[in-house]
Amino acid sequence: MTPLEETIHAIRPIDPGPMADARSHHDRLTKPRGSLGVLEDVAVRLAGIAGCCPPPLPVPAALAIFAADHGVHAQGVSPWPQEVTAQMVANFAAGGAVANAFAAEVGASVTVVDVGVAADLPPAPGLIVRKVAYGTADLSIGPAMTREQAVRALTAGVEVARELVAAGNRCLITGDMGIANTTASAALICAFAGHDPASVTGRGTGIDDATYQHKIEIVRRALDANGIPPAGAVQDGPEEALRALAALGGLEHAALAGFVLGAAAARVPVILDGVIAGAAALVAAALAPDAVGYCVAGHRSVEPGHAVALAHLGLRPLVDLELRLGEGSGGLLAHPLVSAAVRVMHDVATFDSAGVADKDS
Amino acid sequence: MTPLEETIHAIRPIDPGPMADARSHHDRLTKPRGSLGVLEDVAVRLAGIAGCCPPPLPVPAALAIFAADHGVHAQGVSPWPQEVTAQMVANFAAGGAVANAFAAEVGASVTVVDVGVAADLPPAPGLIVRKVAYGTADLSIGPAMTREQAVRALTAGVEVARELVAAGNRCLITGDMGIANTTASAALICAFAGHDPASVTGRGTGIDDATYQHKIEIVRRALDANGIPPAGAVQDGPEEALRALAALGGLEHAALAGFVLGAAAARVPVILDGVIAGAAALVAAALAPDAVGYCVAGHRSVEPGHAVALAHLGLRPLVDLELRLGEGSGGLLAHPLVSAAVRVMHDVATFDSAGVADKDS
Repeated sequence: MTPLEETIHAIRPIDPGPMADARSHHDRLTKPRGSLGVLEDVAVRLAGIAGCCPPPLPVPAALAIFAADHGVHAQGVSPWPQEVTAQMVANFAAGGAVANAFAAEVGASVTVVDVGVAADLPPAPGLIVRKVAYGTADLSIGPAMTREQAVRALTAGVEVARELVAAGNRCLITGDMGIANTTASAALICAFAGHDPASVTGRGTGIDDATYQHKIEIVRRALDANGIPPAGAVQDGPEEALRALAALGGLEHAALAGFVLGAAAARVPVILDGVIAGAAALVAAALAPDAVGYCVAGHRSVEPGHAVALAHLGLRPLVDLELRLGEGSGGLLAHPLVSAAVRVMHDVATFDSAGVADKDS
Repeated sequence: MTPLEETIHAIRPIDPGPMADARSHHDRLTKPRGSLGVLEDVAVRLAGIAGCCPPPLPVPAALAIFAADHGVHAQGVSPWPQEVTAQMVANFAAGGAVANAFAAEVGASVTVVDVGVAADLPPAPGLIVRKVAYGTADLSIGPAMTREQAVRALTAGVEVARELVAAGNRCLITGDMGIANTTASAALICAFAGHDPASVTGRGTGIDDATYQHKIEIVRRALDANGIPPAGAVQDGPEEALRALAALGGLEHAALAGFVLGAAAARVPVILDGVIAGAAALVAAALAPDAVGYCVAGHRSVEPGHAVALAHLGLRPLVDLELRLGEGSGGLLAHPLVSAAVRVMHDVATFDSAGVADKDS
């Protein structure tokens, strides 16, 4: 088997026994039952991921920002010059981006992975070069990647996840950088969640009405050019999923899908950031449905496709603050919430131990 | 002037100059304009609160849990025995409650203030005794407090805020403990936000349908017994606000209103927890409208009255995870979001400094 096949083969469903234990433990804690709402579900999920109750605290946490460029940028779908991808990688390395500030706030490390930036980048601390190509081809006129490129980028993501877990990290967080990557995300969401381009394409980091209509048309052309019917869900197995990923995705989408698979194989939670991660998680789910159990939806961005992707995955976002930045920013903001949810399982007294009377007693 | 009057007199509107500076600084940072959504508004608000840009980081942060009992408990509005208030105060002091776990997670200190628990509490670290009474009277048959009791509890809250700021804290977080206090909260929200009992009364920590209908009826009786028309907003000035607070509130509501006023007078942000804090903030706003500018809505609980209170105050909650615990839990969870919002203003590079090309350049 290839490393990618081995990883997919190693993924098991999250463990229902510790999840049941976590639910009953929660009901003995000194608080009204269910009063922590969504955070109780998060704690239960993490028990299932770790296979024990209480699960370990999700620390240390590591953000991996996968960076790549997109041939579809030539179609004028973004107001930003393509060079900004490489410039922002330098900004991450220098510690000057929002992702760095948020990572410092929540105590996460930052690793940047060049899987497809359209420039040679100078070495920098925290920068890993796993470049598969100098950007993708233009998905609106044909496949963005070859099958072999998609597999190489997937494998790079798997390996980064494995290395971060081997280094002791107990929570992974997805990040991305790639000018024009919301266009590829919209195309992937059409293909994998079965929606029309008009309902999932968004304004990315901010475009005017004319550019927005053009972007929807480009997504539609991408589906046509690659023989994928609009609103045609990819449900024909891993080989067809791989073909759709190669046709429509970015190299960072492929790497992020691999990152999710790598986290799942290692039984470590992975907090998803925004629409790019959501699109990549749809790919991971098509390759290994059990991988979804290892995902926590960090936030919901304003991109309409993101809500569609999360609904398809059955994930509820923790943060909902109209963010539309990417970089892992929304995933990082969710980390303290995930950590707080788990800490409750470790620290809080039970009715018995604290001598607190239970309801109706 | 009394200490309460002095505090109200000292409250100034948040400062528009540093807020404008914060908006333009945000537009120079290496991110698409507006891409941090609600967090940009938070950072701007904190600049206005501190009167400088960038504002200081909101650390250290201090949670104050105001605890008190309620005469209306005798009406069977809660399934929990009244003794749980005192038992939970002991649990806070021992570090065993959810508030302790969340405070440890976000690095906040915990102070518990007895303003009206219906029992004498043994001394404990972090417990301040400012007891005004052994619980309130039953608001469904007459005033819960005298005017003088309400003023004493308000003043206790002001003084706790002042002491925590004098100790170096740069962010205050509201907490509460008091079995039956969602009933008093619903009555206050009716009076101060102008709503009907049926639209603001909730199930608190969890009650069945019959108890829920009874609870709505009790809130309605409270408004009748105290001569406050249902859906009759209190907009007749501070003296009438004080009368409504005394008639319908709990001692912890009064203290929390004072805590908000104290934070505003000291120009320090105060993160509001759930529906109890929301009701108290309505009181504070009636006493000093400019105090609202110093409030950050930490979360939105499942209590219907909480959304009503926040809408009336014009505050948007940061966390929305179906919590219904109180104790300050939702306020604590919001603290890393507030801190991250401010940290961006300190740490993130500008387009010029990082050599990143701006949009359309």
